[in-house]
Amino acid sequence: MNAVILATGDELVLGQNVDTNSAWLSERLAAHGVMTIYHKTVGDDLDAIIAELAEGAQAAELVILTGGLGPTSDDLTREALGRVLGVPLDLHEPSLERIRMFFQKLGRPMPETNHVQALCPRGADVLENDFGTAPGIAATIGGARVFALPGVPGEMKGMFDRHVLPTVRNRSGRTILTEAVRTFGGGESSIAEKLGDLMRRDRNPLVGTTASGGLVTVRIRSDFPSAGKAEHELATVVRQVEERLGNFVFGRGDTSLAQAVGNLLKSRRKTVTTVESCTGGMVGKLLTDVAGSSAYYRGGWVVYSNRLKELELGISMEIIIRHGAVSEPVASLMAERAVNKTDADYALAITGVAGPDGGSDDKPVGTVWVAMARNAPDHPVVRAECFRFPGDRDMVRDRAAKTALNILRLELMKSLS
Amino acid sequence: MNAVILATGDELVLGQNVDTNSAWLSERLAAHGVMTIYHKTVGDDLDAIIAELAEGAQAAELVILTGGLGPTSDDLTREALGRVLGVPLDLHEPSLERIRMFFQKLGRPMPETNHVQALCPRGADVLENDFGTAPGIAATIGGARVFALPGVPGEMKGMFDRHVLPTVRNRSGRTILTEAVRTFGGGESSIAEKLGDLMRRDRNPLVGTTASGGLVTVRIRSDFPSAGKAEHELATVVRQVEERLGNFVFGRGDTSLAQAVGNLLKSRRKTVTTVESCTGGMVGKLLTDVAGSSAYYRGGWVVYSNRLKELELGISMEIIIRHGAVSEPVASLMAERAVNKTDADYALAITGVAGPDGGSDDKPVGTVWVAMARNAPDHPVVRAECFRFPGDRDMVRDRAAKTALNILRLELMKSLS
Repeated sequence: MNAVILATGDELVLGQNVDTNSAWLSERLAAHGVMTIYHKTVGDDLDAIIAELAEGAQAAELVILTGGLGPTSDDLTREALGRVLGVPLDLHEPSLERIRMFFQKLGRPMPETNHVQALCPRGADVLENDFGTAPGIAATIGGARVFALPGVPGEMKGMFDRHVLPTVRNRSGRTILTEAVRTFGGGESSIAEKLGDLMRRDRNPLVGTTASGGLVTVRIRSDFPSAGKAEHELATVVRQVEERLGNFVFGRGDTSLAQAVGNLLKSRRKTVTTVESCTGGMVGKLLTDVAGSSAYYRGGWVVYSNRLKELELGISMEIIIRHGAVSEPVASLMAERAVNKTDADYALAITGVAGPDGGSDDKPVGTVWVAMARNAPDHPVVRAECFRFPGDRDMVRDRAAKTALNILRLELMKSLS
Repeated sequence: MNAVILATGDELVLGQNVDTNSAWLSERLAAHGVMTIYHKTVGDDLDAIIAELAEGAQAAELVILTGGLGPTSDDLTREALGRVLGVPLDLHEPSLERIRMFFQKLGRPMPETNHVQALCPRGADVLENDFGTAPGIAATIGGARVFALPGVPGEMKGMFDRHVLPTVRNRSGRTILTEAVRTFGGGESSIAEKLGDLMRRDRNPLVGTTASGGLVTVRIRSDFPSAGKAEHELATVVRQVEERLGNFVFGRGDTSLAQAVGNLLKSRRKTVTTVESCTGGMVGKLLTDVAGSSAYYRGGWVVYSNRLKELELGISMEIIIRHGAVSEPVASLMAERAVNKTDADYALAITGVAGPDGGSDDKPVGTVWVAMARNAPDHPVVRAECFRFPGDRDMVRDRAAKTALNILRLELMKSLS
């Protein structure tokens, strides 16, 4: 079974918003053996939406369109569907009632504008929306089943699972399984070289790499008629990829570095605290993105000002002035004091020049000291390392935070073996 | 002048990565009067890429394709362009030399795989890449100018500015100007109601709304033959939008809430500190995303564990046990102590149940206390407010962090007037 994914919205085609729905839909569909042929994004233009619905319905058996179901006059999906189907729009009373109820729960009257959301092309199916006001619509155009879902990701996702999945499940003659192996610390071409012949384009499972946010992700796609075969071949190639890449690999699927670190901390019953200067709380944010992180993350300090470095961690102004706030002694003291103050097993400390200002000849923008302290009987064991990260402020901070997490990951893996 | 934006990559069409390039390109093009007709994403499939290049070149005068210029065997753009043009690929020696130099600077030998990146369809133009190894390619297909750029956003953006912009600038007969007015605190339909007739679809400038991440952004698009007229009309409508929306508006363009707060703090010469529990450093992260934030952000604490709340801010276990860590007294004490310890003018404190676990009947997941303390002669003035945010852990944390920033924003606006 093939699919076409359409997205509508001036804000998308003009680039004011990034379309994340299409990627999410494709991934869910692929997991159920449905291959997406293409994504296409057009503006809030009735003729363009009509043309794309017709073309999509010719190209694939399944068409999913997101957006254009809102209450405002730039929401044109209902009308476009009616035109393609050649039917008028009827008021769907139960939908109107649901929309009224939705506002009632919020303790507000329904704005008059929301009235249009209860319109539906005659003969099409209304898809209930449990997460917002816009019902979806399902219809058959030629040989294709077409689903129109809201553009708001939170609403779209719930409606896809409830209304679209049952239709597509098991209707495909193939099983396509994908897995991602996530790595940190190697560039894309060096990862590709390690993978070598595994990346040949005529292989099945097919192996590809993508670089994003300092991570290189290895994608493996297994496409076979039988589910058992697809699964077995996928598992075999995933194992080969992981063997070839060794310590670069931190997880599978959409595992984040912070999750990988969290899992290691949990399995070792260890705890960590953080002391951040240039990253301003990013490492803490990444660690606490993970549900259950309170089992191993204590919290810590954002010592953005030198005064807080002195006040909270007792790093004297004299040391800061002598070596600079971005220096090995300051990074090491940050980590050491944090371990001492919290009794955590590990502390991660970051101090750097994130830019765009504040760089100098010997400490250009991108210079970051990362220190890790490990609690030990007499005195914490501290190790600090200096990095020069490329790119702008965002990239420097992102790489600094991830590098700190990775240093802890490698330390925990070492202590595991 | 019209444009078509193409993106290639199995990881995109299968939904493993989100395409952010197309949105970025459309926005840049729109700013220079080039309207994007559509975005289309296809996989690493030679025939599909060839077909899209041909179709794009028929639909628009400008075609920009991203991706497929890497060193691996799933990078097919060079070959697809050669096929559409009906020419062989030649080795471009200066590119090979640049790629070698790139690796030399990194202190590594050039992997053999990178060799293919120096191939270019005969007669096409090579576009130098100052940011990575993949040169771009420009060619003319029928009446269209086609640019192939790398998929890595950092490289693509630099190359667009250097190689594509000069071609498109001033070749368009219209001036399209866009502005975004950013709001926080109101739902999309209530914002739309306040805008009323300004949102009529037959108006120019055209006004639309989009909701994302708790923010509602009002987009205004002004499209006139004369630059002066486009500018004047845009300014007029932006002013009208801002008047109707009042305090909901925190900025224009891509201003973030943290930037808006930062600008207010700077203009008032005030400083802020943060104490975060469930957000784990997000508010600090958001504040320090902004370059120059050290002028007003002191840093603070991530008191993720109750022990750190006690140890660092002197909030006794007795209080935490009696009221719960997610309570008005604890939130208020967090903010008050932070002001006292740092001498900052304001403190923002957040404690809540981010979920998925930890909720109870009276404090379900999504319950968040946000407190703000203001330094005052005798004793900080503290105000705390309780919220019930919808959604999952990510959404609750995101809304909590933004709501805290917004509370400070409204306070600073009040003290300005």
